[in-house]
Amino acid sequence: MTDHFLRAAIFGLGSMGYGMARSLLAAGHQVHGFDISDERMAQFAAEGGMPGGRAESISLLDCAVIVVLNEAQTEDVLFGDDGIVAQMKSGAVVISCATITPDAARRNAARCAETGVHYLDAPISGGSIKAANGALSIMASGTPVAFDAAAPALDALSETVFRLGDEAGAGSAMKSVNQLLAGVHIAVMGEAVAFGLTQGVNPEQLLSVISKCAGTSWMLENRLPHIVEADYSPHSAINIWLKDLGIVADISKETSFTPHLGLAALERYRAAADQGLGLEDDAAIVKPYAKEAGITLP
Amino acid sequence: MTDHFLRAAIFGLGSMGYGMARSLLAAGHQVHGFDISDERMAQFAAEGGMPGGRAESISLLDCAVIVVLNEAQTEDVLFGDDGIVAQMKSGAVVISCATITPDAARRNAARCAETGVHYLDAPISGGSIKAANGALSIMASGTPVAFDAAAPALDALSETVFRLGDEAGAGSAMKSVNQLLAGVHIAVMGEAVAFGLTQGVNPEQLLSVISKCAGTSWMLENRLPHIVEADYSPHSAINIWLKDLGIVADISKETSFTPHLGLAALERYRAAADQGLGLEDDAAIVKPYAKEAGITLP
Repeated sequence: MTDHFLRAAIFGLGSMGYGMARSLLAAGHQVHGFDISDERMAQFAAEGGMPGGRAESISLLDCAVIVVLNEAQTEDVLFGDDGIVAQMKSGAVVISCATITPDAARRNAARCAETGVHYLDAPISGGSIKAANGALSIMASGTPVAFDAAAPALDALSETVFRLGDEAGAGSAMKSVNQLLAGVHIAVMGEAVAFGLTQGVNPEQLLSVISKCAGTSWMLENRLPHIVEADYSPHSAINIWLKDLGIVADISKETSFTPHLGLAALERYRAAADQGLGLEDDAAIVKPYAKEAGITLP
Repeated sequence: MTDHFLRAAIFGLGSMGYGMARSLLAAGHQVHGFDISDERMAQFAAEGGMPGGRAESISLLDCAVIVVLNEAQTEDVLFGDDGIVAQMKSGAVVISCATITPDAARRNAARCAETGVHYLDAPISGGSIKAANGALSIMASGTPVAFDAAAPALDALSETVFRLGDEAGAGSAMKSVNQLLAGVHIAVMGEAVAFGLTQGVNPEQLLSVISKCAGTSWMLENRLPHIVEADYSPHSAINIWLKDLGIVADISKETSFTPHLGLAALERYRAAADQGLGLEDDAAIVKPYAKEAGITLP
């Protein structure tokens, strides 16, 4: 527990970022929320977010939490035309939460260090509900001073912080391992649901039995209810896995490693996106299987 | 709970069957143990198993539990040259636990019915430790009288019996769904361990972090410790997955379903078997990945 309050900003008020901004607010911090959507920014300000434009605010920040979609957006927020790092005070900390490559994390940390800004490589896991409850898992690496500067924010955002080393990159490496597993687990869950239907096993029965057996996974227990309830409103979308398994594929190439199952799963997400399902919940991975096999889903 | 004792026999005293035979003994039943290994039969008799040859025993049985390797062995025990069903008394029950196709289960049940023997389609999940503790999960289907006749044995063997319908086949269908998931989860666990090593993540760190994150699975938590401890003595062997994912592949063909990830995982088990790892623990699925990538495992 920490007892001092930060002047913080969240960059990216999506399903994860918005909940994280609220968790920081709830812990007593002063929080700016920035997003490409004026509507979300106004909504957050109405909930207690700090008013004031970006230009006046950045130089006063103790902490900037980056929760944008990907590596390119992260680099743009940090170092783009209106990049925040050049405007931040020395000793402030960037907490970088998007899933990016370990190389990008190391590069970002080095560029931040040039102006005395600390950088915490801090990918997150747990989904939007845990984000809103300040109960994320954070896979973090960075210098001890970066951890110290980030501590009050990490306390507010997370249930568990895995401290993975003194250098940026280790956090993102662990996140890519997690995404390889999680992405394959969702895809094989969809495959198993469709396969089960061809064998007379309905999804509700599958959920009740397999969640108690050796075939279960965190993702099966979390996502299969979406199929049972036929609710594909996106908590995490199909497109996220094109991106995150794409990262696994890309960084594997650099070490001549072949992630056979990761690539097979990536192909399934691509098939789903090709059928126009990219913005649906990732449980919609079952739909291309159902279509191929002529099966009716709930 | 039931209060009457059975005259039972276990056919197949492997890592699962032996523990199950002991669980039946511990519950007070009279238990014969039969196996192709005379040594295992003698060991079980020394632990309290019933003496006496197969010929004199079969006609007295209330219950025969079949825990052999596969469909062919199950059919051989039941209906082969020295098949037990023709010798069993009317009203006795066969509890068939090997992973077989739903069609084979239906076929076996029909043949048993010809001589008034009940048949419970009852594949098991949980591994050898749960088998020895009478704590298996059993995915069972069959007639109500088959369930009644099997009840004292099921009580002794299992923590959970999923009652999946009145016809043989439903239990085996659910088991094949479980094996599709479990087989892919083990393979992607191995893939993730090797991928992690290419990114500087060691298996012990991976286990401690991912088991708390969205990328976890029952199999990851159960099998990854084998890799961390470099212990590949077989609890469940690589060859089991060639067989069980082979069943998934075979029955999928009949319905024109393509289990993309199941087939990709099957290919990995085949690669492991081709490297002479067929009899090692299935956690050895990591070894072909390590070899391909030139990685050193613990």
